[in-house]
Amino acid sequence: MALPHAHSSEVVSVRPLGALLAQTQSHAIIKAQQLEVIRVVLRAGEPMRQHDTPGEITVQCLEGEVEFQVGGATHRLRDGDFLHLRARAPHALLAVNDASLLVTICLQPG
Amino acid sequence: MALPHAHSSEVVSVRPLGALLAQTQSHAIIKAQQLEVIRVVLRAGEPMRQHDTPGEITVQCLEGEVEFQVGGATHRLRDGDFLHLRARAPHALLAVNDASLLVTICLQPG
Repeated sequence: MALPHAHSSEVVSVRPLGALLAQTQSHAIIKAQQLEVIRVVLRAGEPMRQHDTPGEITVQCLEGEVEFQVGGATHRLRDGDFLHLRARAPHALLAVNDASLLVTICLQPG
Repeated sequence: MALPHAHSSEVVSVRPLGALLAQTQSHAIIKAQQLEVIRVVLRAGEPMRQHDTPGEITVQCLEGEVEFQVGGATHRLRDGDFLHLRARAPHALLAVNDASLLVTICLQPG
């Protein structure tokens, strides 16, 4: 299901999805000129293959648990864990259990 | 107390401060080339006067409750509420009770 993006200055929820996670796909919360914010939803065992972005990003685990691989290290992220990645830093994910993450992307190349 | 910034790819906590809020000042979690992420800490009744930033920002309430004024409207934000602001959008805050917010700033002009 395609969800509409929020508008600037519109308040939206980034609370855990809980029981709704099973039926929610990853979706953009906002896409503006400089920043895009996505809720990434992964089901237990679901991977996100190695990729990178032209600009810097931040990742915040909102619920569940994921293995986050970057720079040769694997971090176990759970709710409230946060990290920043440099532009073009290759990273990969694997959901340990049902999880959602808030990903903020600088759309300008780093 | 000046807190050191996190490095890129370093996992940090953005969980609620809870009882530690009373002794925590606003501080930068990371300051990189494109993105700066700050935990803004406000005690009950504490204002942040109207200001703006050259680039886009996002604001996520981590705990407590704040009145957030932007574009002639006042939003009541509590934990899990999130909004995006366009570059140079004037905004002001007033803490309803002890609160902390995660603010992500695009350092490049919008």
